[in-house]
Amino acid sequence: MKVLILGAAGMIGRKLFESIAQSGMFGGKRVDEVLLSDVVLPLVPPGLPFTCSASQDDLPAPGTVERLIAARPDVIVHLAAIVSGEAEADFEKGYRINLEGTTRLFEAIRQAHGGSAPGEGYFPRVIFSSSIAVFGAPFPERIGDEFFNTPLTSYGTQKTIGELLLADYSRKGFFDGIGIRLPTIAVRPGKPNKAASGFFSGILREPLNGQEAILPVSDQVRHWFASPRSAVGFLHHAAAIDTAQLGWRRNLSMPGLSATVAEEIEALRRAAGDKAVALIKRQPDPVIEKIVAGWARDFDTARARSLGFVADKDMDAIIKVYIDDELGGKLPNY
Amino acid sequence: MKVLILGAAGMIGRKLFESIAQSGMFGGKRVDEVLLSDVVLPLVPPGLPFTCSASQDDLPAPGTVERLIAARPDVIVHLAAIVSGEAEADFEKGYRINLEGTTRLFEAIRQAHGGSAPGEGYFPRVIFSSSIAVFGAPFPERIGDEFFNTPLTSYGTQKTIGELLLADYSRKGFFDGIGIRLPTIAVRPGKPNKAASGFFSGILREPLNGQEAILPVSDQVRHWFASPRSAVGFLHHAAAIDTAQLGWRRNLSMPGLSATVAEEIEALRRAAGDKAVALIKRQPDPVIEKIVAGWARDFDTARARSLGFVADKDMDAIIKVYIDDELGGKLPNY
Repeated sequence: MKVLILGAAGMIGRKLFESIAQSGMFGGKRVDEVLLSDVVLPLVPPGLPFTCSASQDDLPAPGTVERLIAARPDVIVHLAAIVSGEAEADFEKGYRINLEGTTRLFEAIRQAHGGSAPGEGYFPRVIFSSSIAVFGAPFPERIGDEFFNTPLTSYGTQKTIGELLLADYSRKGFFDGIGIRLPTIAVRPGKPNKAASGFFSGILREPLNGQEAILPVSDQVRHWFASPRSAVGFLHHAAAIDTAQLGWRRNLSMPGLSATVAEEIEALRRAAGDKAVALIKRQPDPVIEKIVAGWARDFDTARARSLGFVADKDMDAIIKVYIDDELGGKLPNY
Repeated sequence: MKVLILGAAGMIGRKLFESIAQSGMFGGKRVDEVLLSDVVLPLVPPGLPFTCSASQDDLPAPGTVERLIAARPDVIVHLAAIVSGEAEADFEKGYRINLEGTTRLFEAIRQAHGGSAPGEGYFPRVIFSSSIAVFGAPFPERIGDEFFNTPLTSYGTQKTIGELLLADYSRKGFFDGIGIRLPTIAVRPGKPNKAASGFFSGILREPLNGQEAILPVSDQVRHWFASPRSAVGFLHHAAAIDTAQLGWRRNLSMPGLSATVAEEIEALRRAAGDKAVALIKRQPDPVIEKIVAGWARDFDTARARSLGFVADKDMDAIIKVYIDDELGGKLPNY
């Protein structure tokens, strides 16, 4: 099986590639070749159990998507996107990458499909990473599978449009698409960043590394989480699933864990003790509090769960993934 | 006030123009100039109370939308579209006109706005005619204001994307948009056409003209209607409304009348007697029955009603509009 990963240099792209490289499998099938693409050149490590190549690409530039699908990948994982904050600040760039890039990709696949009879011609599985940003406040305490999409960011708008195109191209038989709306990923590895959501990971990650973290909101703030390992699991399952089960409703909110900041802190205490918790400094920030108040807190993802997508059990499990995968199972001496 | 009507040669476009021409007003404001555009050249009648020009346009062709908005219309009514059946049969044409045409229009307005400060620069009201085709089965018996959009046609997909772009461009302050989802229009004037929904009008229109009509479905089929006069009323109200009341949820299912075929027939009997009803010939058509079974039957349009949009009272009122507006108030001798 050939796999194309768009956005392969991003956090999820790298984690997905690592998991494919380790097992030689994706979605339960043996992988012969992986093509990696990103706006920065993805790294190809030595000693892989399959052929692998990487390219540095501007997705919506003329010819890019046609070149990427020339090898006729069986599965295309589309993770490439300008993130929410940047798409909001740079309207044209966000629409160019997130909408035009996606449209061009889908169109190139349709052209390659070439109007073949059902069951014939090029017909890849396309996995589109969407986001809970397709929802906009006000919403119910738990957002169900039939709640409407009223994004309040350009990023969320672009993701919603991608979902709609994915569903229509799938319905018309041009490819076999599935869209998965990822929760906020925690514990996000790496350095702190300036994303408004950064503290959700930061208040766990920094103490687990023996460093101070800032908590800008109240302990009672509730949010929607999945570990990087769960996100990778969603992608494997999306590659393996029988899409006939989806009907034409090809886009799914992924299961996650709804937890408060207080629950994060208590799980940190259980994992690393009071000294780790003492590294969290409370510095209320009204700007961040206001942004976070507009975010979804909980979901009823009955549909995705019934289709076999599995979330993290609790915040302890999410912290354990970070300690195991990023810290080699070891905590610092506090 | 300057008004631009895109799709001005279509049924609703012509009815809207007639109503503006009669009163010299649109949405309660005096009209100085009307620009008409369509893929076929719209007719400009003599003796109008305002300046009027018409052009035959291919909406997504380079330069078209820029030329159309060069006069800086205060209100843009975007009715231009490839209809459902054609957009489904010709994928590329549907996306080109319904999506690319709309995207180019919105982009041209954004460029004309030019990143001006709030309250400054070009900032037209944009009224986008959407459709109940943004919803796809299965759905509840009554579709509420928060039900999700899972269109089952390319036309419905294109309309949903138009709605999303309208909301995002409005949120970013590039124009002042409102999207209105029209019910099925009945009684549609003119000759019978081959649309699967044609019989809903046909079983009233043909008997009201002394002609036979074919009924291909059961009397118990329920559907969602508005008269042409109501549709024009929605557009006037959409031009007049204070959009601050909408928040960022700029798209609304318009109120309508939910009625069965049996209720249509009984209203016809009250308006024109048994001889008119006798002109309806039952010829069940499994293909049409199946298509119609996938259509929405009823809506709870609390939001639009609370914002002042008004639907037809009953099927008798809908029939009276046809008799008054299309037959000069007269019925044939049966």
